[in-house]
Amino acid sequence: MLRTKNCGELRKENVGETVALCGWVSKVRNLGALVFIDLRDRYGVTQLSLTPEMYEKYHLRSEYCLRVEGEVILRSSPNKEMDTGEIEIDVKDINVFSSSANPPFIIADKTDALEDTRLKMRYLDLRRPILQKNLQIRAKTVSSMREYLEENGFLEIETPTLIKSTPEGARDYLVPSRLKPGTFYALPQSPQIYKQLLMIAGMDKYYQVARCYRDEDLRADRQPEFTQIDVEMSFVEREDVLLVIQGMLKKAFKDVLNVDLKDFARLTYAECISKYGSDKPDLRYTLYLHDLDEIFKNSTFALFNNVHIKGFKVDGYAEHCSRKMQDEDARLLSDYHLHAPLYIKKLNGELTGSVIKNLSQEEIDSLVKEFELKDNDVLVLDFNSDYENLSLGLGALRKTYASRANLIDENVYEPLFVLDWPIFGRENGEIVSLSNPFTRPKDEHVKYLYEDPTKALSYAYDTVINGIELSSGSLRIYDAKVQERIFELLNLSEEEIKAKFGFFVDALKYGTPPHGGFAFGLDRLVMIFAHTDNIREVIAFPKNLQAACPMAQAPSKVDDSALKILHIKTVDEEKDE
Amino acid sequence: MLRTKNCGELRKENVGETVALCGWVSKVRNLGALVFIDLRDRYGVTQLSLTPEMYEKYHLRSEYCLRVEGEVILRSSPNKEMDTGEIEIDVKDINVFSSSANPPFIIADKTDALEDTRLKMRYLDLRRPILQKNLQIRAKTVSSMREYLEENGFLEIETPTLIKSTPEGARDYLVPSRLKPGTFYALPQSPQIYKQLLMIAGMDKYYQVARCYRDEDLRADRQPEFTQIDVEMSFVEREDVLLVIQGMLKKAFKDVLNVDLKDFARLTYAECISKYGSDKPDLRYTLYLHDLDEIFKNSTFALFNNVHIKGFKVDGYAEHCSRKMQDEDARLLSDYHLHAPLYIKKLNGELTGSVIKNLSQEEIDSLVKEFELKDNDVLVLDFNSDYENLSLGLGALRKTYASRANLIDENVYEPLFVLDWPIFGRENGEIVSLSNPFTRPKDEHVKYLYEDPTKALSYAYDTVINGIELSSGSLRIYDAKVQERIFELLNLSEEEIKAKFGFFVDALKYGTPPHGGFAFGLDRLVMIFAHTDNIREVIAFPKNLQAACPMAQAPSKVDDSALKILHIKTVDEEKDE
Repeated sequence: MLRTKNCGELRKENVGETVALCGWVSKVRNLGALVFIDLRDRYGVTQLSLTPEMYEKYHLRSEYCLRVEGEVILRSSPNKEMDTGEIEIDVKDINVFSSSANPPFIIADKTDALEDTRLKMRYLDLRRPILQKNLQIRAKTVSSMREYLEENGFLEIETPTLIKSTPEGARDYLVPSRLKPGTFYALPQSPQIYKQLLMIAGMDKYYQVARCYRDEDLRADRQPEFTQIDVEMSFVEREDVLLVIQGMLKKAFKDVLNVDLKDFARLTYAECISKYGSDKPDLRYTLYLHDLDEIFKNSTFALFNNVHIKGFKVDGYAEHCSRKMQDEDARLLSDYHLHAPLYIKKLNGELTGSVIKNLSQEEIDSLVKEFELKDNDVLVLDFNSDYENLSLGLGALRKTYASRANLIDENVYEPLFVLDWPIFGRENGEIVSLSNPFTRPKDEHVKYLYEDPTKALSYAYDTVINGIELSSGSLRIYDAKVQERIFELLNLSEEEIKAKFGFFVDALKYGTPPHGGFAFGLDRLVMIFAHTDNIREVIAFPKNLQAACPMAQAPSKVDDSALKILHIKTVDEEKDE
Repeated sequence: MLRTKNCGELRKENVGETVALCGWVSKVRNLGALVFIDLRDRYGVTQLSLTPEMYEKYHLRSEYCLRVEGEVILRSSPNKEMDTGEIEIDVKDINVFSSSANPPFIIADKTDALEDTRLKMRYLDLRRPILQKNLQIRAKTVSSMREYLEENGFLEIETPTLIKSTPEGARDYLVPSRLKPGTFYALPQSPQIYKQLLMIAGMDKYYQVARCYRDEDLRADRQPEFTQIDVEMSFVEREDVLLVIQGMLKKAFKDVLNVDLKDFARLTYAECISKYGSDKPDLRYTLYLHDLDEIFKNSTFALFNNVHIKGFKVDGYAEHCSRKMQDEDARLLSDYHLHAPLYIKKLNGELTGSVIKNLSQEEIDSLVKEFELKDNDVLVLDFNSDYENLSLGLGALRKTYASRANLIDENVYEPLFVLDWPIFGRENGEIVSLSNPFTRPKDEHVKYLYEDPTKALSYAYDTVINGIELSSGSLRIYDAKVQERIFELLNLSEEEIKAKFGFFVDALKYGTPPHGGFAFGLDRLVMIFAHTDNIREVIAFPKNLQAACPMAQAPSKVDDSALKILHIKTVDEEKDE
């Protein structure tokens, strides 16, 4: 190595040593009689002390890449903010590996540049310590999870990424075939079918850190290519899989954040909807939703007839709950086609709220008792004939109030398994699928597939931390009869089954083991660890919201000759329509 | 877990235990009074002992997937070939998870099926113990290399796979963009540019197990998508990188094969050509090529005028070197446009061979001395005006004789670094590039870039084991002046540089560190570990030689509507031409 030490490791104990460091000029302070330079590498920053003659001789400027040799000396005024703040290097010799043009933005955590400028020169952007740290967190996260899986007997097996296009789900990215004119490969949206085939193949325990692709319109937290930690195992019950998920996450939180994650809470999907109004509830705060139908079952208030009524209480918030907030609440709930909320406040021992006059004393007493209403508490109520919709609307409002009332502790992690998901729902009277067709119904619910499919719950499970869905998965169907019934309920003909699931359904006929698995969205997990809401801050070379790379200028036009050998041509949209 | 033990772990010590095993029916032996079943999983095979009643009750057939409970008992006649051969399970209870259709080929290491049939039902093919073992070797190999790299401070960083198409090298796979009509992404042939950008970004030590793509006509050892263990590091000299390669491979050989690999031999490219006639010589046997120009410099033999003359000796092989072999030799060398070899044999103390009569006694004596010719040795000689071509031809013949004379020990591993590669060659008087344009010339050879570029050697290095190239890499240019000179020698205009290397050349202007790296072909390494010549035996779901997947039927036709939103259409070749 051209260096003997890195820029993050020298301490008081090294004083007197002669060392060689390599790195980039991060900051220059020219005091006239002496020049101080901060030298930066992946590991940290070390202060160099140079004579003005040396500084001028080498024309040192920002982002020049250097090697220096010198002696480690004590600083006269230590910098306690820096790991290496007790020492500096008395530079004896400098070798400039390469000079640098003037960077168009500041290479520091706080930068002034637009994101597209930063993405265009990502190689400079990535020199910022915050991004260096994020990529290290990402590497550490994957490494920790691999370690857990390999210690537990999982084999990493690579599945193909040039696969058959299926008409299901999100749009596939397509890849024209040169050797077979007129045909296309697809890039995988997930390795789902392949990992199930590996279980049928007897591989027993599989994992893969898998690149996946979805040609969807991008949102802030989506990328056209993304990474999934994908796991599947045979001869398991649900509990076996949950313990693997919990074990992986506990280890990752410990390894990356040094946080001891507690055992995961468990709630059914129905409980989540009822109590939190969300299928990924944030357990860091209470504000539980209460079902109030029982209290108002004999209500004379017209709006409360033939509807469900729910509400939550915000402790000590009555005085803060302003007219303006209530207007915002109404707007939020209108997205759910819900009536504006009704408020009941207890202020100076008095209950106030426009709804009060419509309620009986018994109803009011029951409400106060139900919520243990204290002075300065506020109740937020709403009603709707659709129970789930009412719950989801109030769930969204619950989040809003948690944040308004400052109830969210950013340093607390509340992990949760959401269990017992419905397999089918009903839309306009029609049965619709709510899960992939291979999700296994609970044994005791298989009968509902023949009686009332919407009552059938599955062995599916999501992992949620602080309201963020981190993984989802399920046990899979391995019984051909159950599989047939599911297809029947989906109104699939044999031809359609063949076209949609073809070789996979064939494979199921050859001794399929009971199996199940899950997949983690790596980007999202790293975003939690890195405390960022921007997915592009945890990916080395991300695409922008137009699915383009401003640096490499991808996608781009290619030569017609390249298209010709692929047997395709581009179509001018206007002319074609 | 539905099992308490797996099918590979029970021993004499477990006798008396009640266990539950899960697996597939591999073999049934019905002895009338008793039925023996081999139950197979990823971990091994365990013998079950059943009553005929149980066997019939469950209709057990090949590849049925079961759970059994029973007692571990001693076998009356142990099977020493099996790890579990001392015991069997006295089955008390059976649960058939799923039955199996009759597999169309035998699920055993020796199978009768054609490869395309096996690929079509790969989920059954992968149940064969040999393939289960190969995938485990593959997982172990990657895991070992990751461990080495992470212990040595390398960060795994993912680079994008939807990138810009470049007109260089092999053909790119293209991916049409939906959001930007008429444009395409390319799938990467390697992460080369991105890993160099990561060094410019200061990431210091990078690795990635990277999926790469080449749309080339397939050979037996090629796949359209393949996996590369890709490494790059900053502030290094060549020796630093070589030690990482050596360290990784030593650890992998130990972890996977329990082989202690010796320190790697080092030869220059020139030495390899001269002594072995190959840029990836197999060091497991001698048969060194000797340069004989000096001996024949005054030869009166017309064929030996104005040519280079080389040869090798095969010890004790004179009697075996038949007419038929010599015909084969001539055919092989004609591929190199070389004259059929000349043979000199020593048999019963006499030298024989048609060429003898053309040689002087002094030349003959020198030859005998040069090769230390003993009784029953044979010399194989040839000549050509092109030294490299002559060497390569004889190098190919050397391999043939090593195999004929049975000189190759399959259990020996001879690792080698090939160093000092030429950067430029000459073809029809024109200077042509022999390496990628970012390969760094040796410091003391930079001057040749201005005098005679074909004399300039680089800091490139290949790793070769037993004649197989496992990795290649180099230090990279970080000096803008050297880079400019290389482009000049390649006759690239500024516009061409911009079009071909664009943003990467810009990036080089911002303080590029000295850096270098390498990439391992994972498939090839696993082929060595698995002792197979067939790349499809070390990949879970490979493509066939038509780049197609017979199982998933990929590539396939897609709906016109899917093409329409991608702004492309397929072109009927006949009509279009």
